[in-house]
Amino acid sequence: MTARDVAELIDGELIGSGGRELTSGGTLADAAPHQLAFWQRGHPADSLPPTAAGCVIVDESTSATGLTLIRVGNPRSAFAKAMRAISGPQLPEWRVSEFPGQVSPDAVLGQGVRVAACAVVEPDAIIGAGTLVGPNAFVGMGAELGRDCILHPGSRVYGSARLGSRVVLHAGAVVGSEGFGLVFEDDHYEKFPQLGGVRIGDDVEIGANSCVDRGTLGDTTIGAGTKLDNLVQIGHNCRIGRHVVMAAQVGLSGGVVVEDYAVLGGQAGIGEKATIGARAQLGGQTGLLPGKRLEAGGAYWGTPARPLRDHLSQLARLNRLGRIWKNLRSLESRIAELESAGR
Amino acid sequence: MTARDVAELIDGELIGSGGRELTSGGTLADAAPHQLAFWQRGHPADSLPPTAAGCVIVDESTSATGLTLIRVGNPRSAFAKAMRAISGPQLPEWRVSEFPGQVSPDAVLGQGVRVAACAVVEPDAIIGAGTLVGPNAFVGMGAELGRDCILHPGSRVYGSARLGSRVVLHAGAVVGSEGFGLVFEDDHYEKFPQLGGVRIGDDVEIGANSCVDRGTLGDTTIGAGTKLDNLVQIGHNCRIGRHVVMAAQVGLSGGVVVEDYAVLGGQAGIGEKATIGARAQLGGQTGLLPGKRLEAGGAYWGTPARPLRDHLSQLARLNRLGRIWKNLRSLESRIAELESAGR
Amino acid sequence: MTARDVAELIDGELIGSGGRELTSGGTLADAAPHQLAFWQRGHPADSLPPTAAGCVIVDESTSATGLTLIRVGNPRSAFAKAMRAISGPQLPEWRVSEFPGQVSPDAVLGQGVRVAACAVVEPDAIIGAGTLVGPNAFVGMGAELGRDCILHPGSRVYGSARLGSRVVLHAGAVVGSEGFGLVFEDDHYEKFPQLGGVRIGDDVEIGANSCVDRGTLGDTTIGAGTKLDNLVQIGHNCRIGRHVVMAAQVGLSGGVVVEDYAVLGGQAGIGEKATIGARAQLGGQTGLLPGKRLEAGGAYWGTPARPLRDHLSQLARLNRLGRIWKNLRSLESRIAELESAGR
Repeated sequence: MTARDVAELIDGELIGSGGRELTSGGTLADAAPHQLAFWQRGHPADSLPPTAAGCVIVDESTSATGLTLIRVGNPRSAFAKAMRAISGPQLPEWRVSEFPGQVSPDAVLGQGVRVAACAVVEPDAIIGAGTLVGPNAFVGMGAELGRDCILHPGSRVYGSARLGSRVVLHAGAVVGSEGFGLVFEDDHYEKFPQLGGVRIGDDVEIGANSCVDRGTLGDTTIGAGTKLDNLVQIGHNCRIGRHVVMAAQVGLSGGVVVEDYAVLGGQAGIGEKATIGARAQLGGQTGLLPGKRLEAGGAYWGTPARPLRDHLSQLARLNRLGRIWKNLRSLESRIAELESAGR
Repeated sequence: MTARDVAELIDGELIGSGGRELTSGGTLADAAPHQLAFWQRGHPADSLPPTAAGCVIVDESTSATGLTLIRVGNPRSAFAKAMRAISGPQLPEWRVSEFPGQVSPDAVLGQGVRVAACAVVEPDAIIGAGTLVGPNAFVGMGAELGRDCILHPGSRVYGSARLGSRVVLHAGAVVGSEGFGLVFEDDHYEKFPQLGGVRIGDDVEIGANSCVDRGTLGDTTIGAGTKLDNLVQIGHNCRIGRHVVMAAQVGLSGGVVVEDYAVLGGQAGIGEKATIGARAQLGGQTGLLPGKRLEAGGAYWGTPARPLRDHLSQLARLNRLGRIWKNLRSLESRIAELESAGR
Repeated sequence: MTARDVAELIDGELIGSGGRELTSGGTLADAAPHQLAFWQRGHPADSLPPTAAGCVIVDESTSATGLTLIRVGNPRSAFAKAMRAISGPQLPEWRVSEFPGQVSPDAVLGQGVRVAACAVVEPDAIIGAGTLVGPNAFVGMGAELGRDCILHPGSRVYGSARLGSRVVLHAGAVVGSEGFGLVFEDDHYEKFPQLGGVRIGDDVEIGANSCVDRGTLGDTTIGAGTKLDNLVQIGHNCRIGRHVVMAAQVGLSGGVVVEDYAVLGGQAGIGEKATIGARAQLGGQTGLLPGKRLEAGGAYWGTPARPLRDHLSQLARLNRLGRIWKNLRSLESRIAELESAGR
């Protein structure tokens, strides 16, 4: 694509020569003349650093230089859009399995499905057109996958799972494992039967080595467009809305409800049957107790979770603890003096 | 099974028609006429919601309706028992490997052992009768597994491990990896030799993508009946008792001792060589410092871990910090007034 | 090796018979006459417990007994060195793949490279001499690995990764997965292009089921000699120095900088673009906010992270909160009395 094509695509103002051919992208510091870069101003006074990039996407207040620039409202977002067009879909190019025993003849594979080396597909699995099953990946008996999904190496979809289209499971992700439901009997634990499923909407992404348990009875559900980072744990019967974001190492116990557009910071831990309202934002390491509810739209932090504002006030007060103790001592001696004077 | 059979099995009082055939189970809301459900009363005043279930297990104070009911002391536990009988053992039905190179001819496989596609079994591994080795699973050289174990897809048992019977490793679980023992020498770290093993008792369950390290010298041990959820980390030389429960993302450093029937909440982190007494209960995200001991039978929470009661008192006091500060200010001005009056 | 050989190797003072042949090692309590053990004194008054070990490495103040002893400055470190010599390099002995489709003919394998059963090597991968690719492991298209690396079962190296020599990936570790970079557009998230790589220095070790994401633009880097424990998350574009140590379940968001010789305790969580200075030490569960910097050489703990000394003072003050409240009450009544006396 030329710089002019990019400007048109991202609806930006082109400054300088639009004929330059751009074949990939890079950081401002490292980009070469055939590459696109972007610059996000930190402070109003910042000026564009020197770069060898062929074209730079900048914000609207950036003044012209010798470089080819494209001015837009949000350079980072525009760069992402441009790069998707320049680089194309970046599909993995895993070689297809040469060993016939891996894919059951009783599985149903749509057009263009590719199953890579050492992947295993069990009977009655239904895999939508264009889906890529990576090396050492696993699709269990009766699982259903939509179109154009990507199962990265070693990801695993149990038979209890139904996935929408364009779902991406990163390496080692597990969908549909048995939930952690136990019943204490006399002197030991028995397993509570784990008979439910997992339903995952379109465009969901599940990070490397993350785990999504099947429901106990009924399903664990994840709404369309939700993105989970690596090493995330989703317990049985969680109901996660659409366009939710969870950073790495977040853990949800069983039966947690997370409403649309909520954002959970890394390592947050959510107790059984708690609810997180729509668009709520949780700071990293936040701990929400079982059964609690966080209101929609709020920002929360701490363990136990409280509104961010309250938590910050408390942290500030904690920092005054030393002064409180000192003041208390001084008041004590002033009172003692008053008392002895009064006698 | 008929409703009458179920009532007999769970030692409950049958109310209504006992002839109904029950072939599976479901939630009260979703169950169909051929399904068993259960109802756990929330408040004493609750009454049984409408359901299409063929039979409902209820508590002893539930009054008769048109439905077929079975009254028992603990409906959830009774339902679990009934479902185990109705559904049978629910064994995975992975296809057996068709590629002979995967299983070493020098491994010893008991009767009925099934090794699934793309699983690998190394020489001198000894696998007990009825054990299922799932797709892409791994059993290392010299490992010993008891009878009727289940190795889910991509789980891995190193040669240093000895497993009892009916042990379940969920997808991606790792047993017997090298511990994190380092020695600092001059300007870099050298590995402390990791030569010990792992011993796992009967009926232990290890969650998806959880890790159990081998001992440095001597073994890491997990007692019979212990259940670990997903993404749990067990460091080298931990000694975990029987019937211990750890929720997801719990992490144990090296040499930790956890006594029988202890329960660790999600994301709890335990420092090196700490000890958790029998039947102790730890809240989620609890942090126990290296070398510390929590007494048997207690409930604990917070970082650093303290008795639950103390931690709750402290949280309550923390919430009074604002008032403390305000009161202090007011006392200060009252004293100042007294002082000026006294002059 | 004889005890005399060991004494020479570790530059220690041999006491007793040096002719004893030592073929392995063990704990003081369990070691047999053909085994080496070591004893690290806990308190100055401790005396060497009875042992059947053939030779014990002890500190310089340990007095002679009937046993063969070797006196050194640091028994633990000396034992580690001796064991490396006695046991040799302990290389895994995985059987080599018999199925030709697993390794692409367009991969370049150095001398002595072994690819185990059900491992997959994609085209244009370059694997240095002596490297072992374990069962079910994956090496992606164009990945570069140095000499004598060990890829444990089910570990995965994407094509975006370049590894030095003697790098060890434990079971299920993932290197080069896509980072968690999102752009919110109108009503949903789009992926920010993930085009960068991962560069890993010599002698790095990455624990079981840990994840290292590729850079967004530019690389994620890990310096030589750094050791990561199990279930660690390294976000895109992190720059980790040399000889850094991270305990299990540590999580780093994107763009974090960790300088040489820093040590991160288990479950520590580091926010985006934060910096940890050289040789800094972070306690378990420490939470560092995005963009913050911890100074070199310091010790830190808590969330938000603060100098260890300050955090301990604050914990001590917190424990006085009950007393503060009580004292405040008592001052209040004393003031009230003074006030009423003054009227």
